[in-house]
Amino acid sequence: MPLTLSKICTGIMPSATLRLNAIVAELRAQGQDIISLAAGEPDFDTPANIVSAANKAMAEGGTHYTAVSGLPQLRQAICDCLFEEKGLVYQKANIIVGTGAKQVLYEALRAIVNQGDEVILPAPCWLSYAEMVGMVGGKAVLVAADDMNNYVPKMHDIAKKVTPRTKVILINSPNNPTGAVWNMEALRGIAEIAQDKDIWIISDEIYEKMVYGGARHISIASLSPDAKERTIVVSGLSKAYAMTGWRLGYAAGPASVIKEMDAYQSHATGNANSIAQFAGVEALKGPQDSVHAMVRAFERRRALMLDCIKKVPGVTYRAPQGAFYVLLNVSACIGKRYLNTLISDDTVFSELLLQHARVSVVPGAPFFAPSHVRLSYAVSEEKIVEGIRRMAQFVQEIID
Amino acid sequence: MPLTLSKICTGIMPSATLRLNAIVAELRAQGQDIISLAAGEPDFDTPANIVSAANKAMAEGGTHYTAVSGLPQLRQAICDCLFEEKGLVYQKANIIVGTGAKQVLYEALRAIVNQGDEVILPAPCWLSYAEMVGMVGGKAVLVAADDMNNYVPKMHDIAKKVTPRTKVILINSPNNPTGAVWNMEALRGIAEIAQDKDIWIISDEIYEKMVYGGARHISIASLSPDAKERTIVVSGLSKAYAMTGWRLGYAAGPASVIKEMDAYQSHATGNANSIAQFAGVEALKGPQDSVHAMVRAFERRRALMLDCIKKVPGVTYRAPQGAFYVLLNVSACIGKRYLNTLISDDTVFSELLLQHARVSVVPGAPFFAPSHVRLSYAVSEEKIVEGIRRMAQFVQEIID
Repeated sequence: MPLTLSKICTGIMPSATLRLNAIVAELRAQGQDIISLAAGEPDFDTPANIVSAANKAMAEGGTHYTAVSGLPQLRQAICDCLFEEKGLVYQKANIIVGTGAKQVLYEALRAIVNQGDEVILPAPCWLSYAEMVGMVGGKAVLVAADDMNNYVPKMHDIAKKVTPRTKVILINSPNNPTGAVWNMEALRGIAEIAQDKDIWIISDEIYEKMVYGGARHISIASLSPDAKERTIVVSGLSKAYAMTGWRLGYAAGPASVIKEMDAYQSHATGNANSIAQFAGVEALKGPQDSVHAMVRAFERRRALMLDCIKKVPGVTYRAPQGAFYVLLNVSACIGKRYLNTLISDDTVFSELLLQHARVSVVPGAPFFAPSHVRLSYAVSEEKIVEGIRRMAQFVQEIID
Repeated sequence: MPLTLSKICTGIMPSATLRLNAIVAELRAQGQDIISLAAGEPDFDTPANIVSAANKAMAEGGTHYTAVSGLPQLRQAICDCLFEEKGLVYQKANIIVGTGAKQVLYEALRAIVNQGDEVILPAPCWLSYAEMVGMVGGKAVLVAADDMNNYVPKMHDIAKKVTPRTKVILINSPNNPTGAVWNMEALRGIAEIAQDKDIWIISDEIYEKMVYGGARHISIASLSPDAKERTIVVSGLSKAYAMTGWRLGYAAGPASVIKEMDAYQSHATGNANSIAQFAGVEALKGPQDSVHAMVRAFERRRALMLDCIKKVPGVTYRAPQGAFYVLLNVSACIGKRYLNTLISDDTVFSELLLQHARVSVVPGAPFFAPSHVRLSYAVSEEKIVEGIRRMAQFVQEIID
């Protein structure tokens, strides 16, 4: 049999941002000053108390295997947080700790989805969801929301997409890339559809602590006992505690699902990094002031970015209530030309913006938000001001 | 659709050692003194220079995402080691760093195996191999070696199992659980079959630094350009550098395969823990005396354990040349009774040994070594002496 590769892997879409990252690296190597508004992680380093806990763990020999599903004290700390912050009652057997929220999200799909099962993805949404669904043999069924409805899909649009093969609805609030925070009405709509059709819910709540201007994060699992029994809550420490590099995420859900996720993880990677787990206990149980300080910084930057964007001609947006992104509608530029290049889509827009205005953003198409670009305000205020100033000038030249 | 789970996950065999671990925990909670010869990891803590490098990385903000396939400096360090220690020439594009050797091994199978493809596993072998093959939709084809051939299967036995669906041969030298180190002749045999039938090779070399008594570890990829082009070499830092909890492994192979593994990892977990990666550079490039000291300690313990085992009546074994295990043939006890319990297999033997002699070992059946048990010498010399003393007495009572 020739040395071919598997269909599952060769079917994975190469990351759309890779080409842009390569151009960034090239321009920087040339000494050009590029402002990146493309970040998907806080620019803050991990708070000192968490780093100290990691140092202590290493000094005390916390460098060995742990239980695959995580240290008991970390799983208990997660239970405590889920109760205190969301009113959710879980035991340790309902919790699994993994290598990032990404891993436990993938495992939740892996544990639930059989070949050909359908997974409903309200869109715009994080690009990895659809890839993950494909990787476990499922079929992603996208339901588009639009700017008009504040990026929350209409419930009858979702209900229409349910078929006998629908196995899961995967929601994400606060949302990447839109920054939308789903309100109680929208979450109730999802919970009702799920109950009515007997469908699992996966709720990605990784941006839960980043909500602004009076918006409130609600976990769909807290809506009713029925909702809790059919929901796998996914979250992690990466965004709230500036621990992206540490890879520490968790899922909470029915013990039957968690057990299967554990079985899978036991052969796929094993426990999450042990030192990160000890540090994670400190993150969750220790002082929370660094989280609050970071959230306040994001709130200021958000206001600043929205202020600056008002000066960009022709673009539209919905003010985000959460996460650290603004999704900018640049349809006014699509179909126009910059110098001699036709701006055929948001990817071309992003490339031209990078090459000529030296601002890096993420195209919307991979997030199922064509004709949009995603701006991140996980950068300094100076960079926000200068980045948007450059973008305003670039857009002005296009639409003039 | 009812809230069922996926066949892939429910098909994973629950770990055979879980029940034994539960009994150990229960007996220890009762205050009983249990000696564990079941460890699958060095009992040493991570060396101080590696811990210092981790502290430095955290202090300097090395807490953010890295490239999915790993820090360039870590991949370069891995290339350097592969060249210096095995004469293998790779570039950074041939290397992927993952969350343990387990992850990259799983990804290698994921990247190569399509539904129904066959993977040849010389046995006894690590229990996760067969599970991983099932998890990617493949079929594990076991080829048994026996005590007589020093646990290396005969090449004509392997050749007989090759079919048009054979996609990979997965070898592991030094071997878990047998401690066998494959010699040049055996490796050449595999390389020839693979070339003749056009089959991939995955070579798990995680125990490469643990070889004793003049045995030498040889990577099959170093045998010929053809062998190198069809081999994915898997290794990691867990065993050699006492970094099991850190989860840091790597694979080296043709760029085409590494690229698919990277695509998969980018959506399944992302980069390995960033701090572990910085520490990993120090592990590979820093002073190696702690590795040598640990290997010497294992060598002493191995000699001690083999000495002690000579006093256990009725059992047989082959002296291991690598890893830190002795596979003990306990067939003389199978079918006999202890107190009133029939010892029907090695699992029952292990349970009785634990409950009555307070020694914990790992049954051989999950490693495709029925009527054997695996003893680990990754424990102190005192525990080796006392553990084997207790076992000798237990076995004596059975065969008397």
